[in-house]
Amino acid sequence: MGAKVSPLAPTSIPELPAIAGVRLATAEAGIHYRNRTDLLLVRFDPGAAVAGVFTTSRCASAPVEWDRARLAGGTARALVVNSGNANAFTGMRGHQAAAATAEAAGAAIGCRAEEVFLASTGVIGEPLDPRPFAAHLGRMAGEAAPGRFLEAARAIMTTDTYPKVATRRAAVEGGEIVVNGIAKGAGMIAPDMATMLSFLFTDAPVEPTVLQASLEEACAGSFNAITIDGDTSTSDTVLLFATGEARSRGVGPIDSTAAAAPLRAALSDLSRDLAHQIVRDGEGVTKFVEVTVSGAVSDASAKRIALSIGNSPLVKTALAGADANWGRVVMAVGKAGEPADRDRLSIWFGPHRVAHQGERDPSYSEEAVSQYMKNSELKIRAELGLGEGSATIWTGDLTAEYVAINADYRS
Amino acid sequence: MGAKVSPLAPTSIPELPAIAGVRLATAEAGIHYRNRTDLLLVRFDPGAAVAGVFTTSRCASAPVEWDRARLAGGTARALVVNSGNANAFTGMRGHQAAAATAEAAGAAIGCRAEEVFLASTGVIGEPLDPRPFAAHLGRMAGEAAPGRFLEAARAIMTTDTYPKVATRRAAVEGGEIVVNGIAKGAGMIAPDMATMLSFLFTDAPVEPTVLQASLEEACAGSFNAITIDGDTSTSDTVLLFATGEARSRGVGPIDSTAAAAPLRAALSDLSRDLAHQIVRDGEGVTKFVEVTVSGAVSDASAKRIALSIGNSPLVKTALAGADANWGRVVMAVGKAGEPADRDRLSIWFGPHRVAHQGERDPSYSEEAVSQYMKNSELKIRAELGLGEGSATIWTGDLTAEYVAINADYRS
Repeated sequence: MGAKVSPLAPTSIPELPAIAGVRLATAEAGIHYRNRTDLLLVRFDPGAAVAGVFTTSRCASAPVEWDRARLAGGTARALVVNSGNANAFTGMRGHQAAAATAEAAGAAIGCRAEEVFLASTGVIGEPLDPRPFAAHLGRMAGEAAPGRFLEAARAIMTTDTYPKVATRRAAVEGGEIVVNGIAKGAGMIAPDMATMLSFLFTDAPVEPTVLQASLEEACAGSFNAITIDGDTSTSDTVLLFATGEARSRGVGPIDSTAAAAPLRAALSDLSRDLAHQIVRDGEGVTKFVEVTVSGAVSDASAKRIALSIGNSPLVKTALAGADANWGRVVMAVGKAGEPADRDRLSIWFGPHRVAHQGERDPSYSEEAVSQYMKNSELKIRAELGLGEGSATIWTGDLTAEYVAINADYRS
Repeated sequence: MGAKVSPLAPTSIPELPAIAGVRLATAEAGIHYRNRTDLLLVRFDPGAAVAGVFTTSRCASAPVEWDRARLAGGTARALVVNSGNANAFTGMRGHQAAAATAEAAGAAIGCRAEEVFLASTGVIGEPLDPRPFAAHLGRMAGEAAPGRFLEAARAIMTTDTYPKVATRRAAVEGGEIVVNGIAKGAGMIAPDMATMLSFLFTDAPVEPTVLQASLEEACAGSFNAITIDGDTSTSDTVLLFATGEARSRGVGPIDSTAAAAPLRAALSDLSRDLAHQIVRDGEGVTKFVEVTVSGAVSDASAKRIALSIGNSPLVKTALAGADANWGRVVMAVGKAGEPADRDRLSIWFGPHRVAHQGERDPSYSEEAVSQYMKNSELKIRAELGLGEGSATIWTGDLTAEYVAINADYRS
């Protein structure tokens, strides 16, 4: 597993520029894997603001609880991420391991433990030994250097078959800002190994509440609009760090939603890029599928229906089989529990309208649709005819390969 | 498909007695299949009461809409069921086909169309030609005979690999009553072919509102407590017919919930039997799994958490791989959106407690649990430690065979 790169992987990896105030280091700490990096330290110059979005799980991991509690502080000096062990469902010892890791990073950098943010991904329920962190973080703090984002993306991989990075620039009042991002995913989540993590970095000088609002907006249309299997990790984490160093290039403070517009656009675009990269690396995925629902009673209703389609095992297995099975899309619309009227419903596969006003579209060509379904990138659209609500989500197909990966993971 | 009987099939088929006032006939109408029966007519002597429970889909099939509208009448003279075509998402023509079928059955039997109940299962979105019904129902009305329940169960099969029948007797005031049931299922639902249908018959003289309440109670702990893939058919239908003929053997009227207690117990037991038979014939299923959640804040909350576990692709693939992956159960509890406290959560696989109070149970034997997971019947229990709410649901595992069946179904 992990040896074969996903057939949907991007064909090239962008070069990420350095971001002033951000230095990175990775190490082989041997937490679970051998002969690969599994520990990431990112250190920030004083004054960096931080925003976060976390899993909705009621059984969140110790690092998620740690970060949530520290977010109110609004500032960050370090981020420590390990792969191989999620430090989830590890009880009191999990909290102790999280605190010990933050203490070690604080000592290495010369900051308070409360300014250290954490993320862990990997096996659930195994106690996380904090000693490897203490052993490596001191040296890593000294070695940390700008621009090492691709190395960072590699160190946080679990079942990912390729590192996920993206970068954007945006013109703002007084100059230009940069946003970089790294991410890891895979099963959308397989709690053993495939939590979704993403870390975003910018040199923009952003007021913390504006930063948080901008991140939430970006996540809604990206990381929170993708699904591989409908399962939700105990550890999903997105953190955005803003060093403010662009000030030295004349960029003015971004302290309102309006002033943040270019940053928000860049963040949303970059987050969507990373989110799509996660779907393209979904376990066993052979199709990248965009599901759009329009004409719903509200955007929220449209999103729930789109996720019902995107999570349906029957829809997803049909996609794996290149089967234009619009009856299963009808089923998934019907079961979503949202307002829908069968007799106003229309469904498209790409440019082909296959169902219209509660019936099979009499004019559709089975042959043309079957040909379309063989593409590795597919679009499904359901128009409900009820209102103005719309939403788009991205997902993959459900293959025997997914079952094989997940049926014998832990052993 | 359908040739190989599920490895979890019951080892014997019970003999079902005749029920006074119920006569059955089947025919090869050639609606979709060849060389097998695909049409069922059940006729009732005057005075039969009827109760029904239907799909929650917002895109329900034409027969479901027909039945719902007729249920208020409270009496039934006939039931017509076809396999091969679901008459779902067939627009106005679907309603016309349903009405024409009911008219044909009414003419054959000598009753009003409004006293005829309908169910269709099979391909979605294909217009259902009502002419085969008219061609066969007249003859079938004459041929209908008591006791042909097994033939009836065979005629309604789609991807089922065995017919599903069950029978119970109960002692009530003044004598004994009989309840027979037939069912078909398979994917839990694959809207192409695997809708869940069940038809129950009793000779008990039951007042219609008591009958409806008894059926709803029975469904809650049986047909509505099973899941194969979390998908919901547009056509799921359970109908209960009570002829009242046991009156002639001295049984008194059952006109209150209390008087119905023995009937309710028999109905619940029989419904659970049929529901389990459906799970055991789930597409690609190799494990029969009971999931119990206790200690939840309410029974409804417990059921939502149990379904979250039972529908999780990651839990189900782990079961397929005989992997005691309790971390995925934690994940599924966490994502259910219901109150849960990680540090009070305990999880059992069969007799083995694998997690306790937010941590791996230090005393569990990986070897013993791994051995347990190889069984074809498994029990998972999650104790939340919050309240008194509990629920049990039944499901199967998710195998590559499920994907294979559903990836190339329609073609």
